[in-house]
Order: sequence, then structure tokens, then C-alpha cells
Amino acid sequence: MVKKGTLLYGGKAKTVYKSERPGCLVMEFRDDITAFDGGKKAVMKGKGRYNCCVSAFFFQMLEEKGVPTHFIRMLDDHTLLVRALSMIPLEIIIRNIAAGSLVRNFPFTEGQKIDPPLVVIDLKDDSRHDPMLNDDLILALDIVTEEELRTIKEMALHINEIVQEFLSEKGIILVDFKLEFGRTEGGIVVGDEISMDSMRLWDANTRQSLDKDVYRFDKGDVIAVYREVARQITRGKCEV
Amino acid sequence: MVKKGTLLYGGKAKTVYKSERPGCLVMEFRDDITAFDGGKKAVMKGKGRYNCCVSAFFFQMLEEKGVPTHFIRMLDDHTLLVRALSMIPLEIIIRNIAAGSLVRNFPFTEGQKIDPPLVVIDLKDDSRHDPMLNDDLILALDIVTEEELRTIKEMALHINEIVQEFLSEKGIILVDFKLEFGRTEGGIVVGDEISMDSMRLWDANTRQSLDKDVYRFDKGDVIAVYREVARQITRGKCEV
Repeated sequence: MVKKGTLLYGGKAKTVYKSERPGCLVMEFRDDITAFDGGKKAVMKGKGRYNCCVSAFFFQMLEEKGVPTHFIRMLDDHTLLVRALSMIPLEIIIRNIAAGSLVRNFPFTEGQKIDPPLVVIDLKDDSRHDPMLNDDLILALDIVTEEELRTIKEMALHINEIVQEFLSEKGIILVDFKLEFGRTEGGIVVGDEISMDSMRLWDANTRQSLDKDVYRFDKGDVIAVYREVARQITRGKCEV
Repeated sequence: MVKKGTLLYGGKAKTVYKSERPGCLVMEFRDDITAFDGGKKAVMKGKGRYNCCVSAFFFQMLEEKGVPTHFIRMLDDHTLLVRALSMIPLEIIIRNIAAGSLVRNFPFTEGQKIDPPLVVIDLKDDSRHDPMLNDDLILALDIVTEEELRTIKEMALHINEIVQEFLSEKGIILVDFKLEFGRTEGGIVVGDEISMDSMRLWDANTRQSLDKDVYRFDKGDVIAVYREVARQITRGKCEV
């Protein structure tokens, strides 16, 4: 039994605690849901559980494919035991189809296929509203080395291929998603989560949203959508 | 005598006309000065002349150093005859020292030296307020090819070295500046202007502004500063 220790970090939808196990952390997925830089928020019973299970599922899949992640195991249906990483304060966004801020900020058309996929990197900095960076800025800010940056992009695009292919077989389009990375002694590994909060997913037939956009834009029953997507993704591997 | 033809384009501070000479344009530097996305504006007698002379001076210097520009010759003290380019809708900003939007948007400290110099590329798109791009976005938007992007960056950094060294000998620090490029049959050439409107310049001793920041932030007599900088830069080569 791994117990939660001291609270280390409370984010918008997850809380991270120290673990009794050295070098490990306990990551709890709460039922809070937020959007628009925290401007819209609510509590949705079950939401933490669905995101936790989906994250655990994808982390296991990535590990099996040789992509290192922080995942160790699930502690319960809304809590993961993960490796403690020295987090890199970047949000790596991979886009296969134009939607969201890409369409708002740049001359892309909603639904336009982007081939090859696009990597956009934002600085994790709430006070500055997570500004977009370019490679020169990332290096000038001394956030990662040139080699680390190359590794992160390669890993992100590789993860995109794996997750996109898996979801495609389930009739789900991976429109875009966000990754965060951290350092261990062994190198760079995937951290944070891979869930309906961090992915933009569309039903391949109806093109309806299957992610946090349902909450952002009041498109329907958020929890029903999260539950259904979690079931489709984790079928047989995680009880949701 | 080259006459101005039909008006082709009226910008915030320059007007471009057709020329009688095929493949050429007439570029007039007006006395209008604007800042903050056009939110602040005024007319300052003589300003067009100073920017025109400084631009002509730098374009000639670049041509002598083998960097192709659109410059053909001065028609009068506020008008240039230039080659007609197919303009690339990008603003290439080279930064040697942190100032302005770099400090507002990212965790840099005003005055911090940036080495190697930083290249930031914005989309020229008034309706979207010229959003910053990254290389992936530039290629996905099909604005330039990968090779053209590499050429543009190399040219920009080379121009930075030339202009920085020249200004340094005059006791002026080239903090940052903006370039625009266009295509000709022979390849990519520098277009637009290189002036106190497009460069951020500091006095090497006092660190006082010698550019449009004097106007932006009401730091003194804009025209007196422009006149003095134009004289220092063009000494003996252009009557200002």
C-alpha cells in the first residue's frame, strides 16, 4: 500500500503528493474541470476517474512500445504512482487537424488536415498566459538543450503516431494533443497526463467533440462523453 | 526622371506607387509616425526624409557587401526607386538585446544580452495582429519553402552582423530590428526599409533610445533624435 504524503502541487485538475517510495510521486486526478485559462470551472463527478484510467492506459501502451513515461502503476481508479521528474516547463502540442487556437490565431481553416503534423511549443507560465515559443526562444531561455529539444519533438511525433493509429481503429480522430516532459537520470520521459483534458478528439463519423471542448462550448453531457470515450479506449483493461 | 504612377499600396508610414520603369516601384517615405498597432499616430515633419536616407544608406551598404536588396536609387530625399518584389508576408525580427515585446511576453530581463542573436518571425496579418510563428507553422501555412526559410534566416543574421558592426563604430547599439523579404526571379532579396522605425537603437554610453521608442513612450523630441541618428549614420553620404 502506497500512501499519499505531503501535498507538493495542486493544479487545476490534478494534485501531486509525495510518496513513501523514494523517487516517486502520487498523482491524483480530481473531478474539477476548467477551461479558458481557469475562467470557466465546475466539478463533474467521475471525471477524474475517466482521465486517470485513460492516462494509465496510454502510458502503459507507450511503455510497451519503448517510449519512457513517468507511469509506474495505478493506486486506485483516480490515482497514479509515478516517477518523480524534474519537469520541463513546456507544453508540447501536436496538431494533425486545424482546430481551436490554431484557427483563432492563424489563417488555418477548421478541420483542415495538417500533414506533416505540426509541433507548437508553449511556455508553461500562468502569469504570462503560456506564450508560444519558437526554437530560438526556447534555447535563449535556456529551458532545454538543442539535443533535448530535438529528442522532445521526436518523442512527441512518435507518440502522435502511436496514439493516432490506436484511436483511429476505435473510430476516433486525434485532432491535437498536449504533452509534458521531464528529466530523469536516464534521460527525458513523458510526464503529466494523456486524457480527454489534454487531447482534442473527434468522432470519425460525426466529427462531434469527444473531449473537453464538450465542456468549453457547452456541446452536451460532458461526463457521459468522457465515460463513453474512456470505455472505448480502455475496453477490458481498466474498469470505468 | 522617374515619375510616380498609380498608387499601389498605402501603409502606415510609406506609400508605394507603380513606376514607369518595368519591374520597378516608387517607395515614398511619409512623415506619418504610428505605434501600438496604429493606436497612436502623428505627423512629424522631416521624419520620412530621415528614414528614407537611412534606408538608402543601409541598402547600399548591403549591396556593396553582396547582400541583394530591392534598392535601385534615391529619387529625392524621401523617395526610393526599388525593384518590384513578390513580398513574403513575414516580419523577420533579429534581437541582440532583450527589450520591448520580448520582455513583455517572455521571461527575459530588459537589457539582457542575447547571444547568439535570436530570430523571431511574425506573420504580417493586421486582422490577426501579426501573430508570432514557429518554423512548423510557417511551413504548414505554405508561406515559404524550407530552403527559403533557411536562406531568409541566414540573410537576416548576416545583415545583423553588418549593421551591428557599423552602428557599433558610431556608438550605437543595435538592440533589435525587423526585416522583410521578397522574391525575384534571381532569388530572395531584402525589401521594405531599414530605418529608425524598423530598428531599436540605444546610445552605447547613455543607453537612451534613438528610435521609434522615443515616440512610443514620449521620451523626448522624436524629430531631433531621428535627425541626429540619420546624420550620424549617413555622414557625408546623404544630405539630411
